[in-house]
Amino acid sequence: VTITSAANPRLKRLRAALRGGERDTQSPVAIEGVKLIQEAIQSQVQIEEIFMAESQRRDPEAGSLIGQIRHLNTEVIEVADRVFASISSTESPQGLLALARLPRFELNALLEGTPLLLVALELQDPGNLGTLLRSAEAFGARAVLLTRKSASPSNPKVVRASAGSIFRMPCLTGFESQALMDELVHRGFLLVATTPRAPVDFRRASYRGKAALLIGNEARGLNDRVLRCVHTQVRIPMAGLVESLNAAIAVSIVLCEAARQREMTNSE
Amino acid sequence: VTITSAANPRLKRLRAALRGGERDTQSPVAIEGVKLIQEAIQSQVQIEEIFMAESQRRDPEAGSLIGQIRHLNTEVIEVADRVFASISSTESPQGLLALARLPRFELNALLEGTPLLLVALELQDPGNLGTLLRSAEAFGARAVLLTRKSASPSNPKVVRASAGSIFRMPCLTGFESQALMDELVHRGFLLVATTPRAPVDFRRASYRGKAALLIGNEARGLNDRVLRCVHTQVRIPMAGLVESLNAAIAVSIVLCEAARQREMTNSE
Repeated sequence: VTITSAANPRLKRLRAALRGGERDTQSPVAIEGVKLIQEAIQSQVQIEEIFMAESQRRDPEAGSLIGQIRHLNTEVIEVADRVFASISSTESPQGLLALARLPRFELNALLEGTPLLLVALELQDPGNLGTLLRSAEAFGARAVLLTRKSASPSNPKVVRASAGSIFRMPCLTGFESQALMDELVHRGFLLVATTPRAPVDFRRASYRGKAALLIGNEARGLNDRVLRCVHTQVRIPMAGLVESLNAAIAVSIVLCEAARQREMTNSE
Repeated sequence: VTITSAANPRLKRLRAALRGGERDTQSPVAIEGVKLIQEAIQSQVQIEEIFMAESQRRDPEAGSLIGQIRHLNTEVIEVADRVFASISSTESPQGLLALARLPRFELNALLEGTPLLLVALELQDPGNLGTLLRSAEAFGARAVLLTRKSASPSNPKVVRASAGSIFRMPCLTGFESQALMDELVHRGFLLVATTPRAPVDFRRASYRGKAALLIGNEARGLNDRVLRCVHTQVRIPMAGLVESLNAAIAVSIVLCEAARQREMTNSE
């Protein structure tokens, strides 16, 4: 049966997921396009439903993908092309949308041992959050912790910008900033923040052991109360009249150095 | 006189600029919001017109900005709030939009001496291009060169993501990839590209003298023909299952190292 009406109740959950307003990790996320859905399947993410534009019925890539998940009891729902186009959040819809559950993680397990964490405080741009999840995975962070008022990891723009890292990188949300700082300090984490006027070049600081890199809001940075908890403030030396780098760029540069020091990557 | 109709012909150029489809640097760019317009004025960008939502008339920030440019013959056009909201490209319109001309630069002058250049080949995402202009300025690149089929620097998303760097960083567009590679090689530039499987850690390569960092398309990277012209391929060591970093992140990490080697930033 092909869904031919945009008002069909089966599309309701999908629409909600595509709006991506939910700030928790329990609501399903919408995954758009063959490549991202493939990444989700390979990362053993639980796909609940797949919505396929009618015209994809004979597409070999879509067919192969659906073949792969046949044994998983995932329902495949066909949608008329014009209905599909009206739902898709991208300008060039790719004809396949999946609803999936992100894996859930326990904070306590993630804080054990000597992990490198990334903590985003009121980071608002979904593109930045997605990019950052990708960098966090690339540089061996164990988890990304998000405070309240941060972008939601279930926003489809986050999913897309993460290029699949969201399916693997533990991402916990909803922390209250000050309580999280206290908890991390109490557990012996070294808190490091990048600020434009910090005295220390980021390459001269240490990121070994239990360490957490903090990243703040795109416009306001980190507030003074948070900065008072920070052990090391580092600076990325810059030329020109630039006040600051993009938040995801800055934290990725520091993460790359942390990974080198921690020997988490296959450096020479 | 307040414009009360969205069909008013005075809004035509503004609309075109907000669509940002033009791939050249001659058409005017739309700049949204007080902060960005301030950046443009400070960078001595030529503002042609300012469109102000009616409700901004008594806003002190908007008033101060308009006071600053009174002597520059910039026309201020008042627009009814609902018309303004229908035109603005952002979800939360800030009530001020400017049309401006980006400064123009000559390629020959930019290639003189021993500059560090950034060359983007078919880079498509406007957010990536804007972020990259910001990083290019922060790390002392002299210019950003864009091939055909790259995002347009006059796209408002590029302007926004550049956080003002677009007003200062020379950005030339429309190059044919192969001709540009030939020209740079002919002029003695060292061409460096970041590729996921390159043998050399990016921290072990040299970026001194006349050097150009290449960045490719987000999905396809750099093509083989371009890679054959490249002198040094470098790799950013990564952990996990990540295939690659976001393009703007990867090139910013390498730019940061290039700036350190070239002593262009105030490192310790």
